[in-house]
Amino acid sequence: MKKLLIANRGEIAVRIIRACQELGVETVAVYSEADKEALHVQLADESYCIGPRLSKDSYLNFTNILSVAKLTDCDAIHPGYGFLSENADFADCCRECNIIFVGPTPEAISKMGTKDVARNTMKDAGVPIVPGSEGIVKDVEDALQIAEGIGYPIIIKATAGGGGKGIRVARTPKELEKGVQITQQEALTAFGNPGVYLEKYIEDFRHVEVQILADTYGNVIHLGERDCTIQRRLQKLLEETPSPAITEDLRQQIGEAAVKAAQAVDYQGAGTVEFIFDYHEKKFYFMEMNTRIQVEHPVTEMVTGVDLVKEQIEIAGGKRLELTQEDVKLEGWSIECRINAENPSKNFMPSPGTIDMYLPPGGFGVRLDSAAYPGYNIPPYYDSMIAKVITYGKTREEAIARMKRALKEFAIEGVYTTIPFHLRLLDHEVFISGDFNTKFLEKYDIMKETTLGGVPNG
Amino acid sequence: MKKLLIANRGEIAVRIIRACQELGVETVAVYSEADKEALHVQLADESYCIGPRLSKDSYLNFTNILSVAKLTDCDAIHPGYGFLSENADFADCCRECNIIFVGPTPEAISKMGTKDVARNTMKDAGVPIVPGSEGIVKDVEDALQIAEGIGYPIIIKATAGGGGKGIRVARTPKELEKGVQITQQEALTAFGNPGVYLEKYIEDFRHVEVQILADTYGNVIHLGERDCTIQRRLQKLLEETPSPAITEDLRQQIGEAAVKAAQAVDYQGAGTVEFIFDYHEKKFYFMEMNTRIQVEHPVTEMVTGVDLVKEQIEIAGGKRLELTQEDVKLEGWSIECRINAENPSKNFMPSPGTIDMYLPPGGFGVRLDSAAYPGYNIPPYYDSMIAKVITYGKTREEAIARMKRALKEFAIEGVYTTIPFHLRLLDHEVFISGDFNTKFLEKYDIMKETTLGGVPNG
Repeated sequence: MKKLLIANRGEIAVRIIRACQELGVETVAVYSEADKEALHVQLADESYCIGPRLSKDSYLNFTNILSVAKLTDCDAIHPGYGFLSENADFADCCRECNIIFVGPTPEAISKMGTKDVARNTMKDAGVPIVPGSEGIVKDVEDALQIAEGIGYPIIIKATAGGGGKGIRVARTPKELEKGVQITQQEALTAFGNPGVYLEKYIEDFRHVEVQILADTYGNVIHLGERDCTIQRRLQKLLEETPSPAITEDLRQQIGEAAVKAAQAVDYQGAGTVEFIFDYHEKKFYFMEMNTRIQVEHPVTEMVTGVDLVKEQIEIAGGKRLELTQEDVKLEGWSIECRINAENPSKNFMPSPGTIDMYLPPGGFGVRLDSAAYPGYNIPPYYDSMIAKVITYGKTREEAIARMKRALKEFAIEGVYTTIPFHLRLLDHEVFISGDFNTKFLEKYDIMKETTLGGVPNG
Repeated sequence: MKKLLIANRGEIAVRIIRACQELGVETVAVYSEADKEALHVQLADESYCIGPRLSKDSYLNFTNILSVAKLTDCDAIHPGYGFLSENADFADCCRECNIIFVGPTPEAISKMGTKDVARNTMKDAGVPIVPGSEGIVKDVEDALQIAEGIGYPIIIKATAGGGGKGIRVARTPKELEKGVQITQQEALTAFGNPGVYLEKYIEDFRHVEVQILADTYGNVIHLGERDCTIQRRLQKLLEETPSPAITEDLRQQIGEAAVKAAQAVDYQGAGTVEFIFDYHEKKFYFMEMNTRIQVEHPVTEMVTGVDLVKEQIEIAGGKRLELTQEDVKLEGWSIECRINAENPSKNFMPSPGTIDMYLPPGGFGVRLDSAAYPGYNIPPYYDSMIAKVITYGKTREEAIARMKRALKEFAIEGVYTTIPFHLRLLDHEVFISGDFNTKFLEKYDIMKETTLGGVPNG
């Protein structure tokens, strides 16, 4: 592989350019009209504008992206995360154009992207799934009967849904009756497909996911878990590895389940299998597979020493995995805080604008992945992430202490950021205890609690 | 230990503040009038001006520093490197004032600071020393006789000298005769002590040093070697670990020799034993011991995971070393490039001034230790180091590739820097081969060679 186009923006585009430079692969950046001044445009070897500011006209524009790739003689396209990264049609178009798509096959993307298909595939592969209906429910009667077998509460999911849409919880048969009808209608309107299926609703769980790497020769390994239980409205805010709730025994089990999941769809590249972890019962269930690199991949890199993006690119180029499962050693602890241009005291209201002063933290055990710079104007059209601060420590305590000092020295002026939120979170005794579930931020309104210690940058 | 005064400036002051914050120790910064706007002043919990811009009036001012420490109720003083760090009198004053000096005892500093005493102490301890005279030579006749036994070339050293002063090479008896006389006279004038001793002059060697940690209970461990062979006029420019020239067997031998050296002076804290490594003969000889933290300590931290500054502070506070020699595992490769405000194309002429644009590199495997920021005015009164870029890789190749991409993305405007020098060095085939000695930069004028590849930021 000699030349690669990065079909993305922001910190992940910078991350991919860095990997390419270290591998000696030339880079082509693409950008929307709103991103002319973006860092990824400055760091790449070549850069081309692919359309107006709206994503649908630029970062989601198949034709323009593929045209640039062809005209600049790129061998490959890296989609990053979001945008076209899980678009099977785009992966297919790349194949048609004889361009390597850095990711799995369109078939694997499709299988994992269709919820009930993924669920059945996992079941057949022996990966634990949440008890539920076998595929689509026929009608309300069918749903009521199945629910009786599973037990309430029940979650109703549209098979074509996603991203928190087309989902409804039912705690009684009456709620189920109504819920199935409404979800079917909504799904038909929103996705053109009325199919819904049922699952047992697990309320009290942690989000635990497993990083996998698979080459094109059938070798699959996992690189331990990440715990992404700290979420706000299904948005991950802080991730860590290892999980404070996972024992060595469970780590092996969940890792093996993730490898099975990947093998079941002949997966290739880097991917993440997400699980619902019922920490009372010590049981985990397949949630979904993200068939791409994830925002939180750095924490895994910190504890394994493996550069996931380089591996991803090399695998796409046909390289055989040099790592075996036995080679993967997890050392120490790593935490990532997503720093967004949002005002955490005003309900996380987005705060786009110009960064006047910008000085990221440094020193031992601190990593910064960002596309910001002094004078950078954060456009309001895309996500609000400014930077990811990643710390490493021998223990969770050290990783937390290092994150606190790093966030305290992170100087950003001109926009509101979520730094004050993270500082409060890192000082919260329940967070420190490691014993919490995905409802942590519903239970504790940490920006309003006044019993906490000093909160600088507030 | 609750509160610590940092008797230093620049990146090492910031480094120490970071360690204290992670340990929960309060910090007091001191600064000269020229350093009012310095980063260490902004990051510390409290800051006090201790005098005018010249070091002798501020950073070397015993009275003012100790007064601030006493008035602010500090338990300890960390001297960093340079300034008072190897001043036995200052360490003694701290003891008198009942303040912990973060470093070894005044006695250990003195023993290692007096060259012929150190040499004899090492000889008695069984640490290899360069063949030479037993102590001070009596007169020219004595010198000629001793030289006959050692063999030419001979190096004449003033026992009170240091930092490249009071040193002269003799290749013939005639040169020796003249050299001893001149060096004695010079030493008398410069240091008030005419004593000189002789050593065999090893011309073709590598600079290899060993990091040690010793607690106050007699436990001493080493943390592998650093190779600092790339020097310009005795100034280290790039350091790496492990050394490309050291085998596992030699690593163990040189490590054990360093531990013996430390034990011979009842050493406490972090220290470095420097060796002349004759790579043809595979023999190493004691050069000197630096009784303080060193500029290049981060590369050791990267491959061992041990935070040397935290260990140093905890040891000074009376903590027992938790690490045993067996716990120290060296993983991967790390390189440090010192980025100075100097113009490498104009004979490394200092280039103080205001940094207009400043964006340090980031991403996986890149660490930045610096006290610079956008708008920072580098004063001309102190050393010219702006930043240390440290990279980590699984192999030397990866660490080099990562350093190249990091230096290429390091944006500094307003002053000249040594980044173009480092980029040329990292592309130099002799550097890449790993096979070079301390005369590398005398032999290759890398800023003038035109056969090299692309040099950005030039």
